[in-house]
Amino acid sequence: MWSVISCFQLVCIPSIKLYSQQIPSQQLKEEEQINTQSVNTFVYRTHTCGELTINDINKNVQLCGWLQFKRMEAFIVLRDSYGVTQCIIYKQKLDLLKKLLSLPYESVLKITGIVMPRPKHKCNPNLKTGDVEVKIESYEIFNLAMSKLPFNISNFNEAKEFLQMQYRYLALRYPKLQNNLKIRSWVTMKMREYLINQCGFIDVVTPILFRKTPGGAQEFVVPTKQLGRFYSLTQSPQQFKQLLMVGGIDRYFQIAQCYRDEGSRNDRQPEFTQLDIEMSFVDQENIINLTEKLIENSWPKFLEPLQIPFERLSYEEALEIYGTDCPDLRIPGRIYNISKMIGKDLNKPYEVYVTVFPQKKQFLTKSVQEQFINLSTQIFKNATLIQLGISDLKLEILKDLFSKSSREKITNFFNLKKNDVLLLTYGLKAEARQLLGKIRVDFTNVIESAGEAIRSCVFKFVWIFDFPLFAINNKTKVMEISHHPFTQPHPDDLKYLCTDPLKVRGLQYDLVINGSEIGGGSIRIHQKDLQKEILKMLNIDSSEMFYLLEALDSGAPPHGGIAIGLDRYISIICKASSIREVIAFPKTIDGCDLMSGAPTLISEADKKLYHIETVDNNTVTKVAVV
Amino acid sequence: MWSVISCFQLVCIPSIKLYSQQIPSQQLKEEEQINTQSVNTFVYRTHTCGELTINDINKNVQLCGWLQFKRMEAFIVLRDSYGVTQCIIYKQKLDLLKKLLSLPYESVLKITGIVMPRPKHKCNPNLKTGDVEVKIESYEIFNLAMSKLPFNISNFNEAKEFLQMQYRYLALRYPKLQNNLKIRSWVTMKMREYLINQCGFIDVVTPILFRKTPGGAQEFVVPTKQLGRFYSLTQSPQQFKQLLMVGGIDRYFQIAQCYRDEGSRNDRQPEFTQLDIEMSFVDQENIINLTEKLIENSWPKFLEPLQIPFERLSYEEALEIYGTDCPDLRIPGRIYNISKMIGKDLNKPYEVYVTVFPQKKQFLTKSVQEQFINLSTQIFKNATLIQLGISDLKLEILKDLFSKSSREKITNFFNLKKNDVLLLTYGLKAEARQLLGKIRVDFTNVIESAGEAIRSCVFKFVWIFDFPLFAINNKTKVMEISHHPFTQPHPDDLKYLCTDPLKVRGLQYDLVINGSEIGGGSIRIHQKDLQKEILKMLNIDSSEMFYLLEALDSGAPPHGGIAIGLDRYISIICKASSIREVIAFPKTIDGCDLMSGAPTLISEADKKLYHIETVDNNTVTKVAVV
Repeated sequence: MWSVISCFQLVCIPSIKLYSQQIPSQQLKEEEQINTQSVNTFVYRTHTCGELTINDINKNVQLCGWLQFKRMEAFIVLRDSYGVTQCIIYKQKLDLLKKLLSLPYESVLKITGIVMPRPKHKCNPNLKTGDVEVKIESYEIFNLAMSKLPFNISNFNEAKEFLQMQYRYLALRYPKLQNNLKIRSWVTMKMREYLINQCGFIDVVTPILFRKTPGGAQEFVVPTKQLGRFYSLTQSPQQFKQLLMVGGIDRYFQIAQCYRDEGSRNDRQPEFTQLDIEMSFVDQENIINLTEKLIENSWPKFLEPLQIPFERLSYEEALEIYGTDCPDLRIPGRIYNISKMIGKDLNKPYEVYVTVFPQKKQFLTKSVQEQFINLSTQIFKNATLIQLGISDLKLEILKDLFSKSSREKITNFFNLKKNDVLLLTYGLKAEARQLLGKIRVDFTNVIESAGEAIRSCVFKFVWIFDFPLFAINNKTKVMEISHHPFTQPHPDDLKYLCTDPLKVRGLQYDLVINGSEIGGGSIRIHQKDLQKEILKMLNIDSSEMFYLLEALDSGAPPHGGIAIGLDRYISIICKASSIREVIAFPKTIDGCDLMSGAPTLISEADKKLYHIETVDNNTVTKVAVV
Repeated sequence: MWSVISCFQLVCIPSIKLYSQQIPSQQLKEEEQINTQSVNTFVYRTHTCGELTINDINKNVQLCGWLQFKRMEAFIVLRDSYGVTQCIIYKQKLDLLKKLLSLPYESVLKITGIVMPRPKHKCNPNLKTGDVEVKIESYEIFNLAMSKLPFNISNFNEAKEFLQMQYRYLALRYPKLQNNLKIRSWVTMKMREYLINQCGFIDVVTPILFRKTPGGAQEFVVPTKQLGRFYSLTQSPQQFKQLLMVGGIDRYFQIAQCYRDEGSRNDRQPEFTQLDIEMSFVDQENIINLTEKLIENSWPKFLEPLQIPFERLSYEEALEIYGTDCPDLRIPGRIYNISKMIGKDLNKPYEVYVTVFPQKKQFLTKSVQEQFINLSTQIFKNATLIQLGISDLKLEILKDLFSKSSREKITNFFNLKKNDVLLLTYGLKAEARQLLGKIRVDFTNVIESAGEAIRSCVFKFVWIFDFPLFAINNKTKVMEISHHPFTQPHPDDLKYLCTDPLKVRGLQYDLVINGSEIGGGSIRIHQKDLQKEILKMLNIDSSEMFYLLEALDSGAPPHGGIAIGLDRYISIICKASSIREVIAFPKTIDGCDLMSGAPTLISEADKKLYHIETVDNNTVTKVAVV
């Protein structure tokens, strides 16, 4: 009984906690409708390690794979990308047996043998190959593995992420990573099929080596053999896709690599992948509809079903109802602005927001409350949080803030009961609702960490639209663009552009899944004068983008598009805990490749070739003076 | 009669010389089997400018596009990515008419109107929309174009390439470029469909920001915020794909961007696109077979049909028969080593090669002969060329070289006739055959430039295999690797590795089309010790690739693959004169983007951020000394 069950567990659910939400590879394959024969073309094997069943009894087969297990001095388990197969070597073949059993785990073999039924009581109904085993006739050793690998693939204890990144070629053998990469490939292919075969899009490759985009994210620079001249690595194909529209390429898409040298975040890499779409002669509604159909057509069927159209919220609605422009609609309920309800109790310009978690008092422990207060006071200077695990219904604790009548209104409106949790914020509107939005998500996480489900176990998509075109940067107090300077202002608000720009909405739309922004786009400015005006308002030197302005003056069609962050989107589909689980060779959050040690020092010859010297920031001036 | 024919010519064959071999967009679309309705979803128009026919008479339609022509004060021609439609505005609508006719060419419009049959004598049977015109009811101006564009799209004289690159967004409107990009998208999609849907490959994205590959092409470097540390832009996914095989990803492919900072060539860009394939448990035959099926499955049907299997030549055969390892098999005939035939006439180690062009004496003018002699003496120091436009059959001119009997043998063997051209080289074997191979192609080009076809108008594929693993660099006299240091030596030749390495063949194969190498691959070394040995032989510091060696020691399967240079391959399929005609935003051969001016100067802030200073090569030492 040992082998069958345990080997299945190791392959398909090596760590129950981490893998429980993983999609078994078999399920994926059925979705893909891959004829399993297809992967046995142009290759040494006759079958994969994941396909033999009782229908193959007595067949002569050749399997290639990794030595995953050996036990009871007779069995080995061979693993490849498609599954595992138990192989048995009979005692008569003593020489073969001895040698085979002496091989290190993870050595690479070709097994030639005959498919046999397993004894009934040793079958594993959970494993596709669980009813059979291969009687080994002969085998070939392709390659030995070193005897002690940094970590064991068939280990219940998954290696630490650091080790997995250092020995990525080993970590890739985990079924989890294998599955994630397969899902990624499958989903992106379905996207391509929809865009090209259904909608007539053209897949166009655009350059990475280009010139700096003024006013955007920090871009990597690349020195050239031309003294003092550098390329920048494009942060997105934004300008190219607009130029393609001017060039009459009606419907463009690309799965593009993008480069940004930005601060560390768990869901960002210095290089990332983006599904990039642009169309001519479209409005916001067109792009939203296309995107929904695209996602519907590339949605894996083994996931919870998808409903289109997705919900929609204006930016203002999202903030007023959820306190964030990335709402997680899986969390039931909302926040309420009760400022009107409580009338004159609070001084203007303060506003009051409330949300209630029925019967969750037990989770609002003292340490949780402290944690929330810390967060509240650290980040939100102009809003105050009150947390109330309700013991009686008199809300005496609020008496310094509200009159008795207001307190009763609150109790009635929310139909408060003992053991409910009431969370309330007051202060400047922007901060009060944002603070409550954040605490609401955090408290949901607290409850779920303690084992009680709050979120419905589905994917919730929502479009956010009607963003303000401009925003004031909190630190610099300077007016900035919210999306990017190519976003078309809402036609109804053009009249405010000069007089009251903060009132102007942009034709911009973000797609949010489960509280994560995974895509966004806009209708672009297609008229030169307006584009010039916007750049001027943002103090961006328009001469840096002379070619784009000239292009807009050369017959530019109305156009718009969207970009989906594929790493993040796929990681949500795969229910992965980080984008690094859906990237074959990820970097750390400070941009290092732990496997190779990149970035590294370079040679003097390279520096000379590119006319650069490395200088410590402090010595720059000194050298220049000398 | 004017409008219909001329507008078709302008759109589909703007320059007869250049476009005569172009594939009409209509033909491509039939191949694509795109439902023409598909491109009218999510968009303002009801139809494209390329689809209306007599079947649409009386339909109310909306077309969006560019104002290509206006004439006879009544007609305009509207163009979009899919074709052109003639529109007519009746004199009754005088206001509309006046305004419309005053618009600059290339302005962007939406036309609303009714489809009408054209008068019989004005139909254009060569144009899909040639039987109809749209009676304009109203129109909307989306955008005006400036009145004088740098060049006119509807001009018989195509703009110079320099201008096309500077105003790329205009050049993209040429039907030629539109078609090329469509074909590129179509072919790459068919490749993906074959690899994923038919063969179960996984599309995996690998990083561009990595560490330098020792011993390869010059790689671009990218400074980071870490003092003195740089990424290199990967020159190909070679290492990653091998690591994926070690990681158990059984069948990988990627359409990858690659970066090499190499010398200028007409068929190279600093960034280029490669179809990159790798498989485990394969031999050379498997990869060759897969590639042939892949090309067959993605071959546009409107091209001359393809025959697989492709021809095959060993490296030695290719040189002996064609004098090159990139033979153009469209040229009939071959070169002959006649050293044996002429016996002792020539001193060893000289060898003699001959090729004959029957009845082509007229093309071997004095200036052509001079040109060939110049080339011969400049490049080939150890071989001599003799060119003979045959007047009589006595070959007296060869009498200083060959005895009468030898000359007669030559005459008889080649069945020489008056007015034949006999080209002969003698000298060191390697140079004599290479020289003749080159002159043979050049003379073919001379004849074809003069208007006489030599090449059969088809695609000729050939595999070259059994390359020598090592070669002596002509300049440095140092032994180098022919392909790359990961190529598996031929098992039959392993015995020579230490004693006579130049005798060792590699398991390497190149795919050549029409004399251009468009792809190549190899079976890789999958054993650490052998890999270490090869690196040592090449004086490559193996510690720079410690992770690859560790990976080979961790259970690496036998594996191999291929890479197809997509830019070049597509340019051959499109019969384009340069790869720049199949790249949306190409760079000049010195790596400049003429549209944006990249590479450009960067800011002091960027230099400070990345701890670099720009230095003139000459002053590097000076600063260091100070």
